[in-house]
Amino acid sequence: MQGQGNHSIVALLHGPDKAGLVARVSGWIFERGGNILHADQHRDGEAGVFFQRVEWTMPEGLGKETAEAFQRFAEQELGMRTQVALRGAGAALPVVAIFVSKQDHCFYDLLQRFRAGEMPGKIGCVISNHDDLRQPSEHEGLPFYHIPVTKENKTQAEAQQVEVLKRTGANLVVMARYMQILSNDFLKAAGVPVINIHHSFLPAFAGGKPYHQAYARGVKLIGATAHYATADLDEGPIIAQDVARITHRHQIPDLIRRGKDLEKIVLAQAVRWHLESRILVYNNKTVVFD
Amino acid sequence: MQGQGNHSIVALLHGPDKAGLVARVSGWIFERGGNILHADQHRDGEAGVFFQRVEWTMPEGLGKETAEAFQRFAEQELGMRTQVALRGAGAALPVVAIFVSKQDHCFYDLLQRFRAGEMPGKIGCVISNHDDLRQPSEHEGLPFYHIPVTKENKTQAEAQQVEVLKRTGANLVVMARYMQILSNDFLKAAGVPVINIHHSFLPAFAGGKPYHQAYARGVKLIGATAHYATADLDEGPIIAQDVARITHRHQIPDLIRRGKDLEKIVLAQAVRWHLESRILVYNNKTVVFD
Amino acid sequence: MQGQGNHSIVALLHGPDKAGLVARVSGWIFERGGNILHADQHRDGEAGVFFQRVEWTMPEGLGKETAEAFQRFAEQELGMRTQVALRGAGAALPVVAIFVSKQDHCFYDLLQRFRAGEMPGKIGCVISNHDDLRQPSEHEGLPFYHIPVTKENKTQAEAQQVEVLKRTGANLVVMARYMQILSNDFLKAAGVPVINIHHSFLPAFAGGKPYHQAYARGVKLIGATAHYATADLDEGPIIAQDVARITHRHQIPDLIRRGKDLEKIVLAQAVRWHLESRILVYNNKTVVFD
Amino acid sequence: MQGQGNHSIVALLHGPDKAGLVARVSGWIFERGGNILHADQHRDGEAGVFFQRVEWTMPEGLGKETAEAFQRFAEQELGMRTQVALRGAGAALPVVAIFVSKQDHCFYDLLQRFRAGEMPGKIGCVISNHDDLRQPSEHEGLPFYHIPVTKENKTQAEAQQVEVLKRTGANLVVMARYMQILSNDFLKAAGVPVINIHHSFLPAFAGGKPYHQAYARGVKLIGATAHYATADLDEGPIIAQDVARITHRHQIPDLIRRGKDLEKIVLAQAVRWHLESRILVYNNKTVVFD
Repeated sequence: MQGQGNHSIVALLHGPDKAGLVARVSGWIFERGGNILHADQHRDGEAGVFFQRVEWTMPEGLGKETAEAFQRFAEQELGMRTQVALRGAGAALPVVAIFVSKQDHCFYDLLQRFRAGEMPGKIGCVISNHDDLRQPSEHEGLPFYHIPVTKENKTQAEAQQVEVLKRTGANLVVMARYMQILSNDFLKAAGVPVINIHHSFLPAFAGGKPYHQAYARGVKLIGATAHYATADLDEGPIIAQDVARITHRHQIPDLIRRGKDLEKIVLAQAVRWHLESRILVYNNKTVVFD
Repeated sequence: MQGQGNHSIVALLHGPDKAGLVARVSGWIFERGGNILHADQHRDGEAGVFFQRVEWTMPEGLGKETAEAFQRFAEQELGMRTQVALRGAGAALPVVAIFVSKQDHCFYDLLQRFRAGEMPGKIGCVISNHDDLRQPSEHEGLPFYHIPVTKENKTQAEAQQVEVLKRTGANLVVMARYMQILSNDFLKAAGVPVINIHHSFLPAFAGGKPYHQAYARGVKLIGATAHYATADLDEGPIIAQDVARITHRHQIPDLIRRGKDLEKIVLAQAVRWHLESRILVYNNKTVVFD
Repeated sequence: MQGQGNHSIVALLHGPDKAGLVARVSGWIFERGGNILHADQHRDGEAGVFFQRVEWTMPEGLGKETAEAFQRFAEQELGMRTQVALRGAGAALPVVAIFVSKQDHCFYDLLQRFRAGEMPGKIGCVISNHDDLRQPSEHEGLPFYHIPVTKENKTQAEAQQVEVLKRTGANLVVMARYMQILSNDFLKAAGVPVINIHHSFLPAFAGGKPYHQAYARGVKLIGATAHYATADLDEGPIIAQDVARITHRHQIPDLIRRGKDLEKIVLAQAVRWHLESRILVYNNKTVVFD
Repeated sequence: MQGQGNHSIVALLHGPDKAGLVARVSGWIFERGGNILHADQHRDGEAGVFFQRVEWTMPEGLGKETAEAFQRFAEQELGMRTQVALRGAGAALPVVAIFVSKQDHCFYDLLQRFRAGEMPGKIGCVISNHDDLRQPSEHEGLPFYHIPVTKENKTQAEAQQVEVLKRTGANLVVMARYMQILSNDFLKAAGVPVINIHHSFLPAFAGGKPYHQAYARGVKLIGATAHYATADLDEGPIIAQDVARITHRHQIPDLIRRGKDLEKIVLAQAVRWHLESRILVYNNKTVVFD
């Protein structure tokens, strides 16, 4: 959250809890001349799992090898699954591929946030099953790929999408109200995390037309949920959720309009947390070190 | 919401929409010397239904017959289903029966609110399947009925409950975390509305142990829902809902603790709205004129 | 809130309360063949003032003269100050002038909402003291006026702004983070309402650099306030407010980033309410019929 | 937040930031056989200050001397101001003195929470300038001290209050809507932290009758603020805040009623955080490790 130094290393660890983990991690960093900016831990007492996000600075020029050495140390000596990212001057920004259909509010919102520097990453390409958003994408200097999807061509279309992702070097896929279900095969072949925004307060109103479902049930709050996409639709690990109050006066178009504001904010929050290496997934749930 | 005059009449109407309803209702009141304090309408365009809550004052002594005359007018001439209540000096307060088990936070909260004058009604009795809350009930001057419920005696226990309700003259049953399911037969025999508090954001996590369900799913918000009880458990018309933010740091006891505050506030809100004649039920949903 | 019919008339009234106002207004409409879609009243008991928003449909072709006749009726026979607007097919959309400086998040947000049809109005022009947003304005087809403002030229600059407003036929000015104070003379000469967004929870942190003030005081929530601009800076009638939770971890740049989301939503809400004729101003406060 | 082991040590540290602090603290604990349950850090980059809350378990019987040794280590070797608390079996619970006047909602709410085990502390006594709450206090088994306060006797009354606090062994004073200003002399003589609840969103509407001020200004949200009391009324470090939405329909009694729910929750949250050693005060602001 706080301003970071010019170069920093962020590590996300998790694994079996044991005594002394905090001391060993911080000791390792200290001995190599690093200075810890943030360290946040979580222990799931029931599951016996330890989670940590630690961010530290190193003297100039020592970033890359330190990151690699830390990963070896954490995995081999501490038995922790580990992701390490370099941040700041000189480090490559993570590349995001945006999937979108015709609904454009999340698309424009993300564009504006990346442009304004709110997101530590860059948009590598826009992929859509419709051609509608070509102009604003290209106006922004973003490669736009129109890949129509039908029942018949779904396998080929997904192969094409994966090909574009590889070519773009995408590290993250963001489904900005992309109205197609991604197959399990796609998720495997893509090999990068996929963040989706569902326009309800999951697990309520999973599936299609959630605002219509919410209206029919007569709920007094509507919601939006950002989650990692998994093979089970709407069942992936939840990253962020928010709700807005409605009354009997709100008809379905009102729910849709109000919901858009929720969707934009919740999706942007999830994407930013992901790009800042704040999210650990465990047991189909997320640990978010904000 | 605003302070009321000393005597007022509150009418809740709903029925097939047609032109001139607002004019005819307000005209009827005006011609009889009444002064409208509040009038709130709602039209469900899709269903073609008109809803109204109207509250007005009458010159002293004209309350009761005016109320009855209005009901005849609205039902016979306008074709509206109508409930009319007299409020203020001289009018009888609605009587509430509280059902409770061992969880006592909603019970104490309601007690304090009735005592403080927040609720336009009075508690007529407390009914529980455990004897634990006898002392605080009787200390408050409230008749306490311990009616144990088992699988075997459920029918007789419910008959006993209905008998107490009739004797108490209860106009409303409030299930303040009463951990038993009321049968359809009970609901029919009781013949008065029943408000229940469910400790989740319905329709998410219906059924038992909702906080455990919420923890397992990894949601980022927990909720509470007050609804009218119907034969279908957790499926009745929703009156009020609220949520609170949680993180991965919150374990199940934390969810339970935070949830209690939601439950208290949401249940109290629903009870108050009901006692103020603000709620119309239609199509298993509520219109709340707050 | 609900969908409107094709043509409708919206009237906002306020004036001294007296018996029968609801009946007389609804009777007048009913007698002329109108059908009330919505009618919402408010009485300020203390001040003895009656407020009403009423929206009704008329048989085709009768909109304009009915609107004028209603205004005469309400003013002359009921003694009410009255604004009447025609909505729907054939009625002119209200014209909005957007004032902006360099901060562009509210600007882009409003553009997207007008483009998406969320706002019952159209943007007539963009006026800025900087030239930065010329390209995106003109790309959207909006006339852009760069009117630099200095201490020395303020009077002439404001005269130029007023001239543009008149030429544009603006019915509303929206200060979308326009970082200049509009003089009382400007407000008078412009002759149309001006909505401003202040980036704090007023009356807390009025004046400059509110996020810095909030950080220094150590508050746990930050806010945004949309209000009508008056001669007294930050003292005008409040239309909408919202807040977001912060912690000690949030530094000033975090407050600014989170605040932007609040500012966008609160400003958009206020502008939409205004364009839908939902706001009455009285006693430096607003009555919002949402 | 998570369940704690049977005995644990909680340390709150703050002081000049320097490299290696996390490593040295965690190393010290690890070398003595301790196991860190939670460790949370914060660095105020601007001020160059390091803050930490660390909680760890020790093998049985080693709690007290370890706590004292840690305090010496942190103060002498790390140059940190340090508070250390023992928690769990065998450790003394912190003692709370509740100050109250006639408004009783926070009083009853706290009673219920302490009784329900939500608070890791115990109420040592109730002190009031009125006699109204003697019965419910004594019914709960709590010593009740009626100490009337007038302009004339204020100094003596405060001396009496201090005497009661000393005799009770109070570690914390909670002003549960105590409608008297505590003098600077009292705060010094009491020598323990004092938590107050102010019924507005500070710094808005400081001073008397904040709901009346809020109504007059026409705000759309009302708030409550829990803070440590200091010599400057309403200017102390803010611990917790919350808000609720209001509309033009809410009159002052509605604001007061809704505000009570905010006050109860915000005050209870602040007291619980304090009793769990989660709050560090620095620069008239709080760092809350929740």
